[in-house]
Amino acid sequence: MSYLTEETSVDVVNGRMGEETSPRLRQIMSSLVSHLHDFIRDVELTEAEWEVAIDFLTRTGQICSGNRQEFILLSDTLGVSMLVDAINNRAPTGATETTVFGPFHVDGAPEREMGANISLDGKGEICLYQGRVLDLDGNPIKDALIDVWSDNEDGFYDVQQPGIQPPFNNRGAFRTGADGRYAFRGIKPVSYPIPDDGPVGKMLAALGRHPWRPAHMHFMVTAPGYRRVITHIFAAGDQYLVSDAVFGVKQSLIVSFEPADGVNEAWHADYDFVLCPAQP
Amino acid sequence: MSYLTEETSVDVVNGRMGEETSPRLRQIMSSLVSHLHDFIRDVELTEAEWEVAIDFLTRTGQICSGNRQEFILLSDTLGVSMLVDAINNRAPTGATETTVFGPFHVDGAPEREMGANISLDGKGEICLYQGRVLDLDGNPIKDALIDVWSDNEDGFYDVQQPGIQPPFNNRGAFRTGADGRYAFRGIKPVSYPIPDDGPVGKMLAALGRHPWRPAHMHFMVTAPGYRRVITHIFAAGDQYLVSDAVFGVKQSLIVSFEPADGVNEAWHADYDFVLCPAQP
Repeated sequence: MSYLTEETSVDVVNGRMGEETSPRLRQIMSSLVSHLHDFIRDVELTEAEWEVAIDFLTRTGQICSGNRQEFILLSDTLGVSMLVDAINNRAPTGATETTVFGPFHVDGAPEREMGANISLDGKGEICLYQGRVLDLDGNPIKDALIDVWSDNEDGFYDVQQPGIQPPFNNRGAFRTGADGRYAFRGIKPVSYPIPDDGPVGKMLAALGRHPWRPAHMHFMVTAPGYRRVITHIFAAGDQYLVSDAVFGVKQSLIVSFEPADGVNEAWHADYDFVLCPAQP
Repeated sequence: MSYLTEETSVDVVNGRMGEETSPRLRQIMSSLVSHLHDFIRDVELTEAEWEVAIDFLTRTGQICSGNRQEFILLSDTLGVSMLVDAINNRAPTGATETTVFGPFHVDGAPEREMGANISLDGKGEICLYQGRVLDLDGNPIKDALIDVWSDNEDGFYDVQQPGIQPPFNNRGAFRTGADGRYAFRGIKPVSYPIPDDGPVGKMLAALGRHPWRPAHMHFMVTAPGYRRVITHIFAAGDQYLVSDAVFGVKQSLIVSFEPADGVNEAWHADYDFVLCPAQP
């Protein structure tokens, strides 16, 4: 029998777990307690700092609502989301790299005809997005579903402006044929700040960090027999590529948006997706 | 310039901090990010587990209200509160040991006459609490203020039952004279479960842990020129001493409640507080 001291705290807390605790939960909680206590010991957290932390976490929870998830923002801005993404999406060289899902995806976006324009509000510069969905050997993948979403010209997703933007503005899904090709039109996306009027915004300010994300188009690509890819393509040249507030940028996801000569669009962005086989 | 990878994540996130960030905040956040990322790498947290964590933290914040602080419960039940207490209250041998403050203290409890009964509802077994407030050399401390609080016979603090218990039921403050002696009457406290109908209660259940705290009387002892002591005395023999849900027990704080022969009380509990000089 032992009481908690500075020296024994990890063992005392973890020793309290019951025998029926699932092995995975036991592993996660043991590691969490160990690292959390080590952090507190390392910095010798004061009681006043502990109170600040309790208050910060409480406010972070309380500002969450249907359209706002501040704990995801916290995870994103501390690099946790990208680390979890990296650990869970290791893939062979050549496969399309993944990045953060973000909080703005909406299930059930309408499947549209290949080539359709997802920008329903008529604002912004139109860009033709096009390319192929391929396997690791370069063969086209049929029946791949490409679910895409972006902000509008003002930097807001439709769900951030309910009643102002048309439903499913800048959202849509496209299904490939036998040639694996996709094409759709949307706006050339713009960089935007993550919501920074809450606890996470205050944290970023205290850390001397800005809340901006470089311009990007979101993609979720699924196909029977292949591993799902959740990613963005980023617009080359954006000033926030090297300082994305959520650390989402990877070199392979930066795409040059080129001027188009057609009458239907001002820009085109070409990108091929390469999917890995689904894991058994 | 580098993007976040599994290998570089800590350096990339911490490298983003601005030069004006205060040295202490920089130290705390750097250590937090390092330990947090190490935890995620150690357990290879899955995306589904990350979602559970986001949901848990969100619900923990959302259940907080004026009378409920679930993040303090989380800190308490993970041993964090007691570790912070230990780090911040290192004291020489012989000084009264500290323990968790808990969420149920109320500022402004009335100062009562020495010997008064703080149990205003007439329920529970009455106990005489008595002893002295001393310095490290055993000299009595005059003008020490002893702020005390406990649960009622049913295991609830007055603030948990507004409108049911009289205001300041089982609360009071007592000031020592030149002899350093204190005495007051209150109930012999009972063990009680911390609120376990929220996320923390579910966590404890999943870990095979009970939510009970052993019976205790809270004390906050202050005196001019001395370091404040926040502590409990625990009733010897309580079945939860070895498994306090918040890890608050220390051997030196366990006190034998003895049968009293007086007509005013059924029990007495004798305890001397020993204060350290205030730090300069």
